[in-house]
Amino acid sequence: MRMYDLIEKKKTGKELSTEEIRFMVLHYTKGEIPDYQMSAMTMAVCFQGLSERETLDLTLAMRDSGDCLDLSGIHGVKADKHSTGGVGDKTSLVLAPIIAALGIPMAKMSGRGLGHTGGTIDKLECFPGFTTALSEETFIENVNRIQIAIAGQTANLAPADKKLYALRDVTATVDQLSLIASSIMSKKLASGSDVIVLDVKTGSGAFMKKEEDAKKLAQTMVSIGTMAGKKIAAVITDMDQPLGNAVGNSLEVVEAMESLSGRGPKDLMEVVYALGSKILMLADAAASETEAVEKMKACVANGSAKQKMAEFVEAQGGDASYVWDTELFPKASREIEVPALQEGYVNQIQAESVGAACMMLGGGRETKDSDIDLSVGIYLNKKVGSYVKKGEPIAMVYANDSQKGEDAAAQIQSAYGISAEKPAPSKMIKAVIQAF
Amino acid sequence: MRMYDLIEKKKTGKELSTEEIRFMVLHYTKGEIPDYQMSAMTMAVCFQGLSERETLDLTLAMRDSGDCLDLSGIHGVKADKHSTGGVGDKTSLVLAPIIAALGIPMAKMSGRGLGHTGGTIDKLECFPGFTTALSEETFIENVNRIQIAIAGQTANLAPADKKLYALRDVTATVDQLSLIASSIMSKKLASGSDVIVLDVKTGSGAFMKKEEDAKKLAQTMVSIGTMAGKKIAAVITDMDQPLGNAVGNSLEVVEAMESLSGRGPKDLMEVVYALGSKILMLADAAASETEAVEKMKACVANGSAKQKMAEFVEAQGGDASYVWDTELFPKASREIEVPALQEGYVNQIQAESVGAACMMLGGGRETKDSDIDLSVGIYLNKKVGSYVKKGEPIAMVYANDSQKGEDAAAQIQSAYGISAEKPAPSKMIKAVIQAF
Repeated sequence: MRMYDLIEKKKTGKELSTEEIRFMVLHYTKGEIPDYQMSAMTMAVCFQGLSERETLDLTLAMRDSGDCLDLSGIHGVKADKHSTGGVGDKTSLVLAPIIAALGIPMAKMSGRGLGHTGGTIDKLECFPGFTTALSEETFIENVNRIQIAIAGQTANLAPADKKLYALRDVTATVDQLSLIASSIMSKKLASGSDVIVLDVKTGSGAFMKKEEDAKKLAQTMVSIGTMAGKKIAAVITDMDQPLGNAVGNSLEVVEAMESLSGRGPKDLMEVVYALGSKILMLADAAASETEAVEKMKACVANGSAKQKMAEFVEAQGGDASYVWDTELFPKASREIEVPALQEGYVNQIQAESVGAACMMLGGGRETKDSDIDLSVGIYLNKKVGSYVKKGEPIAMVYANDSQKGEDAAAQIQSAYGISAEKPAPSKMIKAVIQAF
Repeated sequence: MRMYDLIEKKKTGKELSTEEIRFMVLHYTKGEIPDYQMSAMTMAVCFQGLSERETLDLTLAMRDSGDCLDLSGIHGVKADKHSTGGVGDKTSLVLAPIIAALGIPMAKMSGRGLGHTGGTIDKLECFPGFTTALSEETFIENVNRIQIAIAGQTANLAPADKKLYALRDVTATVDQLSLIASSIMSKKLASGSDVIVLDVKTGSGAFMKKEEDAKKLAQTMVSIGTMAGKKIAAVITDMDQPLGNAVGNSLEVVEAMESLSGRGPKDLMEVVYALGSKILMLADAAASETEAVEKMKACVANGSAKQKMAEFVEAQGGDASYVWDTELFPKASREIEVPALQEGYVNQIQAESVGAACMMLGGGRETKDSDIDLSVGIYLNKKVGSYVKKGEPIAMVYANDSQKGEDAAAQIQSAYGISAEKPAPSKMIKAVIQAF
């Protein structure tokens, strides 16, 4: 078998066999197929696409390129959740302890943030001492004991995906649907949980700008998961404006802790409950969405979700007193008000622009090795649909550098659109995708 | 400017600017743009194509990536000829001395053979002592003195093309029309002649199987040449069966020498005269095709073409006695008759298959560094349209190894198609493409 022939085959629109895809992934991972052949292949895939079968084969081959976690030592149905990434997305920090408090084991792998979207691991590291570098033993033990653990991806989880993603990133072949789906799913399948719920974001602040594309991606991933024997669902959620009010690591953690005390922003809680219902139903812990939401709300109301968060932080070496007293989190030295430029209804808040402002403040990562400032960020006082007066503070910028703070404030100001007409309310949950 | 953005631009169907193409070629040649980005680009080009302007820009950028020959020291209108390659193609060996004998300077760059097609340099090296490694000074001096010189391509002629071609060769991106045209034309333009005549082969033994594709390629090359200020024409010629009767280096040289004595195969001479007419007319040495052909025929009849061949061989260090006495060429040790399998009309001789049989005998190059046996080859006694009896020798195989000879004979036998009906005669000259 020669890689040359596989490129030619795909270029002329033919389907690659299972053996051909496994050959390609195996030898590429070993460095026996050069980057210049693989990049020609991925570009050909951008034009010719991959069939459902090819996409599944690619996913499984990448899953098998490294270690797969064996979670059989965990009692019960293990759940994992994945988001395609958005601005202000602290959903996992609220959802995971709620699910765990309801007795469903949350065995989650997370990543760090890159670009304008934040990562769950960065947020968790706001708790002093918190670590996600868990051994497989500790990970399993923690889930068995307190039903929750969140670990960073191990170096050898789907190494083929890591190598292929890095190549796609520099050859303009990132945006192909089957390649995105197989990249996400290879890691999810290697992480070994039984139930997978995907939060596929759509809108101006999401990778998938169009709802139609988000749906296609969700369908592809659900189909891969189902064929690989997983219980899986995807929820398409709105990312036209940032989720909740806080953007920036510590600020988002504070908002998440408030949410666990029943004071969460409406849009954030809508996403949490939509994803949570799917997990509970797929894990056979609720018979209907209504029952699932009732259970989750009770868990927040009676304090057990927040209690679970404290146990979780402590179990991974963090200082749990921060869960109970969020005033302990370090604050940025400067607070800058962002006044409304005119009177009217907020009709848009460009999420990517808010994410970029947070990066500007030092709160995001430009490259994989950047250091980030956990205390900076933005708090959006007003969201889409609010009525504001001219000069009223629509947002607050938290900075550790005056110039950067002023620049970020100007950027936030222009990220807001204000008009005379009240905008039509937009739906947070656009669709739910599930196998039949 | 970033290569990433250029790939993205081409992938989404946009046109690259002149500056962008020059940037890409310059930095790729220097090794500052990696192969994996260039192969993603060439694959995107396979799907999105290049506009006429982009193709010209790519050609000129590759031409300028190395040395350009300065032929201004040669008196008169300098002519060059290029063939896209075929089996049994000894056209240059007949055409060049005829044109030179008529006083038009033939300043030609040639390549070696690769794969199933032979190269002019390999054939010329059948003359003991012959060399194509000429200094620029000797090249110019020879053309001025005897109106003919054929040199091998210098190492630094269009190095960007050399590097890009090698990459396309391993990434299944060789067959894109604009890339083929710019590859050929960058070298032709760097070689510095005023008149360029292209022999674009079409048919089962050619790179361009379909006449329509050959025409498109010819049009693209003629348009590039015209825009670059050259007098240029392309002749589309038949390569459905091998050209002439001889295939194999020495055998082809013998046939070429016979042709210069007026005993050339009809199909070969038709191609020689079609290409030669174009050269003479573009060089203003003939007013019409009729006049051009008359002049060339006279030149063969009166012996001046063959005399020119002898001068040319001697000027490049070769033993000219071989021109006059072709019995001197070394012969293969074994001659094997190939009998017809049935009675009837020859309706096809698969050219690629005949070329492969010659390779099998050791007469062709598998890789750039292979040694070749100049004495082996095939002589086709019968060509398409001939009537043969069962068992009659349709071809002769000349081998230096019995087993290889038997294998080649079997291959030649199956390359022949014989049927009861007489095939319709096919035209040697399919079309002539010229700028308006």
